[in-house]
Amino acid sequence: MPKYYLAKAQLTELLDELGEGAALPAERELAERYGVARETLRLALRELLLEGRVRRQGRGTVVAGPKIEQALALGSYTEGVRKHGHTPGRALIGLERFAAADDEAARELGVERGDFVWHLERVLLVDEERVGLESTYAPVALLPRLDEDFDPVGSFYAYARDAGGLVSGGGAERIETVLATPREALLIGTPPALPMLLLHRRSWDKQGRPFERVRTLYRGDRFSFSTELRAAE
Amino acid sequence: MPKYYLAKAQLTELLDELGEGAALPAERELAERYGVARETLRLALRELLLEGRVRRQGRGTVVAGPKIEQALALGSYTEGVRKHGHTPGRALIGLERFAAADDEAARELGVERGDFVWHLERVLLVDEERVGLESTYAPVALLPRLDEDFDPVGSFYAYARDAGGLVSGGGAERIETVLATPREALLIGTPPALPMLLLHRRSWDKQGRPFERVRTLYRGDRFSFSTELRAAE
Repeated sequence: MPKYYLAKAQLTELLDELGEGAALPAERELAERYGVARETLRLALRELLLEGRVRRQGRGTVVAGPKIEQALALGSYTEGVRKHGHTPGRALIGLERFAAADDEAARELGVERGDFVWHLERVLLVDEERVGLESTYAPVALLPRLDEDFDPVGSFYAYARDAGGLVSGGGAERIETVLATPREALLIGTPPALPMLLLHRRSWDKQGRPFERVRTLYRGDRFSFSTELRAAE
Repeated sequence: MPKYYLAKAQLTELLDELGEGAALPAERELAERYGVARETLRLALRELLLEGRVRRQGRGTVVAGPKIEQALALGSYTEGVRKHGHTPGRALIGLERFAAADDEAARELGVERGDFVWHLERVLLVDEERVGLESTYAPVALLPRLDEDFDPVGSFYAYARDAGGLVSGGGAERIETVLATPREALLIGTPPALPMLLLHRRSWDKQGRPFERVRTLYRGDRFSFSTELRAAE
């Protein structure tokens, strides 16, 4: 068992004793208490940080709360965050129109190569803190006035329903773990090596027309995703 | 844009050109080709390795295939792996009986504190390669002879059905990204810093009796998980 891991196990017990929001003692004091080098202690703290057990606050480190559990379900970001007693939010990074160049992307949105597609990019917030980055792609033909009358911090689903008559008829989602790119890390404000959860989503309307393709990156230390399983008959 | 990331972008293009299974040129050659220091190139390669875009083979590095996509559905490991043309397998680490000590664990399995619980631990294999670690907990009262007549590389669900009359009536699953512990990294044979996907699952039978609690760790560079979304009415 490596030394840093023993220190981590001891720190984990300490976190449980201290409870959410409590400040950790100084690194020097902790290193002394567990009889390890300062570097070893830092390694243990770093893993706890990556796992979301502690978080930085100002110059210190505090015990983090549990991860926010999101249901794998259509349009649930706002709801999932509220359920945990937090305030959800979004901040606009950009909205641009481009010609679909990639055949797969075009096919997934049900458009031809060269047709115009929206790319709406927004940072996801929890209590004003940046926790994710959402890229939504949608055919311009279905929502031609998105750049004019969409409130960029509002719900895309509500807009698609009200402005385009697009009501979700179903979707498919895929989740994986990835490393943030430097740009993504900068936009979300995370260290670049932090493991992220990447959700790919495609949705179609009641007539089976694809109307969005979404790629959302969530901080792996702040989110988990849940689903209910039905028994196979 | 950091230098290593530019090298990574160039390497990504190279991987697409080379195609799955192809060997990468030597590090020295690649560093020269992209005009970066050997250390910078290694950083880029390390990220591609963590993300599952390349993998080590013998002393070299080869282009990896796509991640194996698993459906978030009951008992689907074998099926999901087969669908990708790979051979699934399991290797027994241990099977032990212990008295439920932790109240939450006991409640999740519908047993009282002090009741006996099985812990079945197995390594998951894809084409003989270790890719995950599965811990299954089940009440001894429901499957009293698990240690005698269960084939430890076989399907737990098939056994639970045949030996205990336990047919799944549903379940709940939660997925998050974590770092492997040193023991887990050793058992799965991964570098300790590799991001993993951790699946928590609880299942109950047709009468609603909890009969298993499973904690499965999957290599984040080898797996993704998918689910279908039904529209909220």
